[in-house]
Amino acid sequence: MELWFTEKQLTEEEISTVCLSVRIRDVLYREKTPLQEIAVFDTYEFGRMLVLDGIIQLTTADEFIYHEMIAHVPMRTHSSPENILIVGGGDGGTVREVSKYPGVQKITLAEIDQKVIETSRKYLPELGTAFDDPRVEIKIIDGVEYVHSLKNTFDLVIVDSPDPLGPAKDLFKADFYKDVFEALKQDGIMTIQCESPILNRKLTRRLYQSIKHAFPNFYYYLAPVPTYPSGLWSFAVGSKRYNPLQPQNDFTPGHTRYYSPQIHLSAFTLPPFIQDIFTT
Amino acid sequence: MELWFTEKQLTEEEISTVCLSVRIRDVLYREKTPLQEIAVFDTYEFGRMLVLDGIIQLTTADEFIYHEMIAHVPMRTHSSPENILIVGGGDGGTVREVSKYPGVQKITLAEIDQKVIETSRKYLPELGTAFDDPRVEIKIIDGVEYVHSLKNTFDLVIVDSPDPLGPAKDLFKADFYKDVFEALKQDGIMTIQCESPILNRKLTRRLYQSIKHAFPNFYYYLAPVPTYPSGLWSFAVGSKRYNPLQPQNDFTPGHTRYYSPQIHLSAFTLPPFIQDIFTT
Repeated sequence: MELWFTEKQLTEEEISTVCLSVRIRDVLYREKTPLQEIAVFDTYEFGRMLVLDGIIQLTTADEFIYHEMIAHVPMRTHSSPENILIVGGGDGGTVREVSKYPGVQKITLAEIDQKVIETSRKYLPELGTAFDDPRVEIKIIDGVEYVHSLKNTFDLVIVDSPDPLGPAKDLFKADFYKDVFEALKQDGIMTIQCESPILNRKLTRRLYQSIKHAFPNFYYYLAPVPTYPSGLWSFAVGSKRYNPLQPQNDFTPGHTRYYSPQIHLSAFTLPPFIQDIFTT
Repeated sequence: MELWFTEKQLTEEEISTVCLSVRIRDVLYREKTPLQEIAVFDTYEFGRMLVLDGIIQLTTADEFIYHEMIAHVPMRTHSSPENILIVGGGDGGTVREVSKYPGVQKITLAEIDQKVIETSRKYLPELGTAFDDPRVEIKIIDGVEYVHSLKNTFDLVIVDSPDPLGPAKDLFKADFYKDVFEALKQDGIMTIQCESPILNRKLTRRLYQSIKHAFPNFYYYLAPVPTYPSGLWSFAVGSKRYNPLQPQNDFTPGHTRYYSPQIHLSAFTLPPFIQDIFTT
C-alpha cells in the first residue's frame, strides 16, 4: 500500500493548478485545534513533515535552509541583537537559530496556537528542544495584538508565519508592519517570510508596498526550499538603519548547512524577472 | 472536469517518493517515437509544457532560467566562442540563447530524436524558431558517437540532455567527458546540466568525479527551476583554461530575464550542504 500526502499549492489566482505529493511512511499525529488542522507525517524523501491546514510548513530534510536564512541574515546584519521577537515560528526552528548567538539576552516567541509548540516538542525534537533555552519566553498570543501593545522594545522582529490565509492573514497587512516599526528600537530590523516570487508575484508586490510604507529601507532575498511552492522562497527586510549587504555582526554561527557569509550576500542578487516585481 | 499531469520525480533511490502535478487545459500533442514518448500540454500555471517519457523537460513559463544559465555562463566565460556544439537541446532553447552572440559563427545541434525538433517547431515557437538562424546546423545523430568522431573542433560544448535514463544515459558517463575534452579546442569549455543537488546527491558526486577525471578544472553552479525536481537545478563546467568566475567575454546578451553578470557570479556561491557533495 502506498500512502501519499498531496498539497494543493497556493497560486496567484487562488485556484489549484499545481500539487506537490510526498509519499509517507506513517501519520504520526493529526488533530484539529480551534485554529487549524495540524499533522506530522514521516516521509520517505524529506524526513518528518509538519503540515498546517494542508500546507507543508517544514520537513526535517530542508527546514535548515528556511530557518537559517530567516534568522542569520538579520542577526548578522544588526551589530548587537539582544532582544528578539519571533512572531509565529511555533515549530522552534527560528528560535534554535537565534539562540546560537551568545549576545542574545531574550527571545520572545509569540505563537497563536499552543498545540503547534506541543507538537514540535513531541514530534520534531530537532526543532522543539530549542524552547528549553532559558532566554526563551513563550507567549500564546495573537502576534498582531502583541506587537501593537509594545513600543521601542526589540532589536529584531522575525515574522515566521504560515501563508497569508487562516490565522496568519493579518501578518501580511500594512498596519501590522507599522506596528512592528513602532515595536522596534531606533536601529531595529524586521524580517518576514515572503512566499514564492514565482507563484505569488502580486502578493510579493503588495508586501513590498506595505513594508516600504512603514520602513525607510526595504531589502529582499532568496533561498531555495524544495518543499515550498515553486521551490524558490523569499524573505523581505524592513530596516530602520542597517543595510543587510553590510553585515555588522562579527559573530558567525557554527554548523550552518545553508547559511554562510558568502550566501548571505549572494542571496540578495536578484534575477531581472524578480527585480521587475519591484520596479514595474 | 479537471485534467492533471503527474511526474513521478527521479530521486536517489529510484523509487517514486515525490510527485509534481500540473493541471492542464489540453493535450496538444502526444506520440511514441522509436526512442521515447513525447507530449506537449497546455497548462494553467506554466504555459506550454514539453514532456519526454513522463519527465517535464521545459515549460514556457520557466524555461528561460534553465536555457539562459546553461548558455550564457559558458558563453561569457570564453573570450571568443565561435564554434558551438549543443548535444541534445532539441527544443531549441539553448540554440536561441547561443545565437544572441554576434561573434558566433557556427552552432551545431546534435539531437538524437528528429521528432523533438519537429514538435518544438510546431508547438513551442518561442524556442523552435531559433533553428531558422543560418548559423545553425542540425544533425540527427547520437551525440556520444558524434563527439567521439571529432578532435580539436569546438570552443564550447553544451550538454543539454534529459535525465540519465533512456536515450541520454551515455551522456553521463566518464568516457563521454573524455571525448568532449578531445573535441574541444585547447581553451574549450564544456557545460552540462547536472540534475538536482538535493535529490540527486550521489549522481552529482559521480558526475563531479567523472568530469574531474577528464578536465583540469571543475566548476559547479545553481539556478532555480520550479518545474524540475526539488526546484533547485545545477550545472557543471569542465574547463581547459577559463575560470567562469572571471568572464572574458564583454558581450552581454540583451533581454535576459534570469541571467545577469551579477547572477553569473552569485550562481557559483554554494551553500555548505552542497559544497559537502564535493569535499566529503
